[in-house]
Amino acid sequence: MHESEIDTPALVIDLDIMEANMDRMAAFCREAGVGLRAHAKTHKSPVIAHWQIDRGAVGQCVQKPAEAEVLAWGGVRDILISNEVVSERKLQRVAALQAMATVSVCADNAATVELIEAIAEAAGRRMTVLVEIDVMGARCGIEPGAEAAALAKRIAASRHLVFGGLQSYHGGAQHRRSEEERRSAIADAVRKTVVTIDAIRGQGLSCAIVGGAGTGTFRHEAASGVYTEIQAGSYIFMDADYARNDPTPEFQQSLFVLSTVMSAARDGRAVLDCGHKGVAIDSGLPLVHGRPDIDYIGASDEHGALTLRDTSLRVGEQLRLVPGHCDPTVDRYDWYVGLRGQRVACVFPVAARGMMQ
Amino acid sequence: MHESEIDTPALVIDLDIMEANMDRMAAFCREAGVGLRAHAKTHKSPVIAHWQIDRGAVGQCVQKPAEAEVLAWGGVRDILISNEVVSERKLQRVAALQAMATVSVCADNAATVELIEAIAEAAGRRMTVLVEIDVMGARCGIEPGAEAAALAKRIAASRHLVFGGLQSYHGGAQHRRSEEERRSAIADAVRKTVVTIDAIRGQGLSCAIVGGAGTGTFRHEAASGVYTEIQAGSYIFMDADYARNDPTPEFQQSLFVLSTVMSAARDGRAVLDCGHKGVAIDSGLPLVHGRPDIDYIGASDEHGALTLRDTSLRVGEQLRLVPGHCDPTVDRYDWYVGLRGQRVACVFPVAARGMMQ
Repeated sequence: MHESEIDTPALVIDLDIMEANMDRMAAFCREAGVGLRAHAKTHKSPVIAHWQIDRGAVGQCVQKPAEAEVLAWGGVRDILISNEVVSERKLQRVAALQAMATVSVCADNAATVELIEAIAEAAGRRMTVLVEIDVMGARCGIEPGAEAAALAKRIAASRHLVFGGLQSYHGGAQHRRSEEERRSAIADAVRKTVVTIDAIRGQGLSCAIVGGAGTGTFRHEAASGVYTEIQAGSYIFMDADYARNDPTPEFQQSLFVLSTVMSAARDGRAVLDCGHKGVAIDSGLPLVHGRPDIDYIGASDEHGALTLRDTSLRVGEQLRLVPGHCDPTVDRYDWYVGLRGQRVACVFPVAARGMMQ
Repeated sequence: MHESEIDTPALVIDLDIMEANMDRMAAFCREAGVGLRAHAKTHKSPVIAHWQIDRGAVGQCVQKPAEAEVLAWGGVRDILISNEVVSERKLQRVAALQAMATVSVCADNAATVELIEAIAEAAGRRMTVLVEIDVMGARCGIEPGAEAAALAKRIAASRHLVFGGLQSYHGGAQHRRSEEERRSAIADAVRKTVVTIDAIRGQGLSCAIVGGAGTGTFRHEAASGVYTEIQAGSYIFMDADYARNDPTPEFQQSLFVLSTVMSAARDGRAVLDCGHKGVAIDSGLPLVHGRPDIDYIGASDEHGALTLRDTSLRVGEQLRLVPGHCDPTVDRYDWYVGLRGQRVACVFPVAARGMMQ
């Protein structure tokens, strides 16, 4: 089946490019001596997780217990929920999941640690808990240093818990535009992480994992000598927003939304069958791949408005869109269509799509 | 089961309020003498479609063939795809669907009409086609007047097609803030529609359906004496963006995203477990229902940042969010949880979630 026969909107992967991205990151981590715990919030697929693990990734990250379930059911054995899990029901699910995989969670306060402890005890499972520290000043995470060390001590003191280390992710730094801004943000995160590691050592404990980093900054965390695991996700697919970073990351765009022209009634304009239901616009509008003469200028639910410069389009013509943001775009779809060149090579589910709980 | 026992993020409906909204719109359309062809792009559910039809709705609108399939499979018998369908494969599916429901489509150019004709002929089914006219100047639709009438004539001349009337929807008018802006935009749409109806009459044809309107403007289309069917969808749920219209529409908020506080490490701030993966932000950030002392100030994929004024939140506490935009928010979820007060009364699928093709 040829790309032109795919019904649209459809989520397509150029498999050759994705594999080259995976190989490149795997080689980097091997050479830098850090583990790659690739983030499945990007791909939401045990299929892709295994392709990463086959290339040497130590495991996967997810953001939600329901995503961890999908990976564990798909045979992934080492999963970190790089996020707080605070409800009893969710923690019971994580405890039950230990029967088929090692699933660690993060915590940023003592009350949550107590809840995890109670649920681990009731389930008869030891659970590994990482302390998330706030290196970004805007989201979850406990104050770095003494407070974080006290929480680590509380975890380590429990018969039902294992202190797993530190979660130290600076999400806000990934998309800062200049190399210098990103370097400076991560230097600050590294300082806070070092202070915390020292405070934890002062409690007689050590951090098996110090995890964080993303596609925008992983070279800095890897060079710090402090981080043991890199949690990049987007590098396999890339998106229009990462392409605006300076310099552009060394990975190539492999993920596209295939879309069809559904109306071309006016000169210089056309309408695509893909609006923001089919391509996430939280980080900006999509680009039209390989067509600098066409701009995607507006998204409603089901329509994308195009302006054309010295070109025309006919109804039924297909275009590839480069999403502004890959993770939430993937979350709109039930299936990936994998291409080799323009031939359909495979179809597989976005198995953890919508797994928000 | 009590609301507080629902795992989050979850999409909940206050059924009493939704039913009151449905009753109100049904009564309005009955009194105004227009049909209500409620738009299923909002709810994506045959269950809700039947509740609307039980109250007198003449049928349903959808935007995509895959949505029409889900409704037809759920027993809805009269469906208008209020949008262009331009691909052979999609039109073949629409033709096949005629075995179980009347499914009409829109067209805005002669080439598409020819394609529909060929597929109807091959399938041995007569298909009803409406002409979409451009009353908004920004999306699909043929030029009102003579061009549209020529297209109507082309449809009516086919042995395999039925000319179904006009699709004349001014999407851009729904959220203009002042009553006067909305009234003026619809007055303009009505003028273009009247010109087109007259031109079509000049061809010896009549329009069985003249459809359009939404929750922001339906009173104007109904009062025009020109529109026969109102295509409002959002009125059953409402959202924060419609609430910014002046005056506020007469419907009450019935749709909420239930969310949980996952971190509250800092004074005056907290983090919810629902970001833009769980609540659409294309029309602005969500509001925190019934809590004017709390602002939702930022959404990342899985986190919502709150600022608190003279109040505090504890980890695990639940809040109801009012989505900025109901339609794409619904599209993020697989299930509705229906509440009577704070008790769970029913759970049913968002059956047409993700049906973008």
